[in-house]
Amino acid sequence: MESPGYAEDKEAVLKRLKRIEGQVRGIAGMVEEDRYCIEVLDQISAVTRAIQGVALVLLDDHMAHCIAKAVAAGGEEKDTKLREASAAVARLVRS
Amino acid sequence: MESPGYAEDKEAVLKRLKRIEGQVRGIAGMVEEDRYCIEVLDQISAVTRAIQGVALVLLDDHMAHCIAKAVAAGGEEKDTKLREASAAVARLVRS
Amino acid sequence: MESPGYAEDKEAVLKRLKRIEGQVRGIAGMVEEDRYCIEVLDQISAVTRAIQGVALVLLDDHMAHCIAKAVAAGGEEKDTKLREASAAVARLVRS
Amino acid sequence: MESPGYAEDKEAVLKRLKRIEGQVRGIAGMVEEDRYCIEVLDQISAVTRAIQGVALVLLDDHMAHCIAKAVAAGGEEKDTKLREASAAVARLVRS
Repeated sequence: MESPGYAEDKEAVLKRLKRIEGQVRGIAGMVEEDRYCIEVLDQISAVTRAIQGVALVLLDDHMAHCIAKAVAAGGEEKDTKLREASAAVARLVRS
Repeated sequence: MESPGYAEDKEAVLKRLKRIEGQVRGIAGMVEEDRYCIEVLDQISAVTRAIQGVALVLLDDHMAHCIAKAVAAGGEEKDTKLREASAAVARLVRS
Repeated sequence: MESPGYAEDKEAVLKRLKRIEGQVRGIAGMVEEDRYCIEVLDQISAVTRAIQGVALVLLDDHMAHCIAKAVAAGGEEKDTKLREASAAVARLVRS
Repeated sequence: MESPGYAEDKEAVLKRLKRIEGQVRGIAGMVEEDRYCIEVLDQISAVTRAIQGVALVLLDDHMAHCIAKAVAAGGEEKDTKLREASAAVARLVRS
C-alpha cells in the first residue's frame, strides 16, 4: 500500500484533528451548561475555520504529491486525479 | 439564570454535536490508517456541513427567542443584541 | 407600498453594487486579455467578499427593521418572517 | 506571451462573467425599486454561487495546465506554482 499525500504532515494533522475533537466536545459542554447562544456560535465559527485549515493542508499535500505524480504519469491517471481533485475543491468551496 | 434561546432544541443539538465529535474522531482514524486524501477531504466537507447545520439551528433559536425578546424590550438592549447577532452571522458567512 | 429594511442604507448599497458590477466587468477584461489564472482567481475572491459584505448589510437592516416589526406584531407574521430570515441566512452561509 | 490555463474555456468564462455582471446590475435594479430584503438576499446568494462556479472552472483549468506544466518542470517552478495555487484555494474556501 502506498503512503498518502499527507504522509509527512500526518502527525501534525492528527494533532489538529485531536484538538478539533476537543473543541467540539467543548461546544457540547457549553450547550450542556446552557451557555449563551452567541458564545456557542462563535466557538462553532472557530471550529469551522480549524477544520477548513486541516482540509487546506491535506489539499496542499494532495496537489504536491498525488496530483504531481498523476500528472507525471499522464493519460487516464492524470485526468482521473484532476477530476477528483476538482470535485473535492468544489465541495470545500461550497461547504 | 435564564435559559438560552436553544433550550427546546438542547437535546437535539447535543445529539448532533455528539455525532460530529464522532465524525471528527472518524477522520482522525482515517488519517491514522493512511486513507486516501480525497476520502479524508470528503469527510471533512461532510463534517463542515454538519457543524454549519448546528450553527443554523442555534441562530434560528437565537432570533426566535433572544432577539425577539430584545426587540420587544427596545432601546439599548435591542441595539446590542442586533449588533451581536449581526457579528455572529458575519463570522458564520465568512468561515 | 412599504419602504424596505435597507431604506436608510439604500444609497450606500447601490454604490457598493455599482462598484461590484465594475469589478465583475474588470474580471471579464482580465480574461479577455489572457491574464494569469491566479490573478483572476484573486479578483474573484475579492468580489465574492464584496458581495457578501452587501448581503450582511441587507441582513442587518432586515433584522433591525422587518424582523423587529414582525416580532412586535407576533403570531403568524412573526413565525413567517423568522422562518424566511432563517432560510436566507442558511443560503448565505452555504453559498 | 503564453496563453492562460483557461484558454480553451475563455469564451464560456466570458459568457458567464457577462451574465454575472447582468445579475449584479439586476440586484441594483431591485434595490432601486425598494424590493423586499429577502428577495434581494436570495439574488445575492445566486450570484455568489455563480461567481464561485467561474472560480472552480478557472481553478480546474489552472491545475490541468499550469500546475501540470510546473510539476513536469519540477524544482523551483513546481514549488512556486503549488504554493500559489494553495493560497488561491485557501482564499476561495474562506471567502
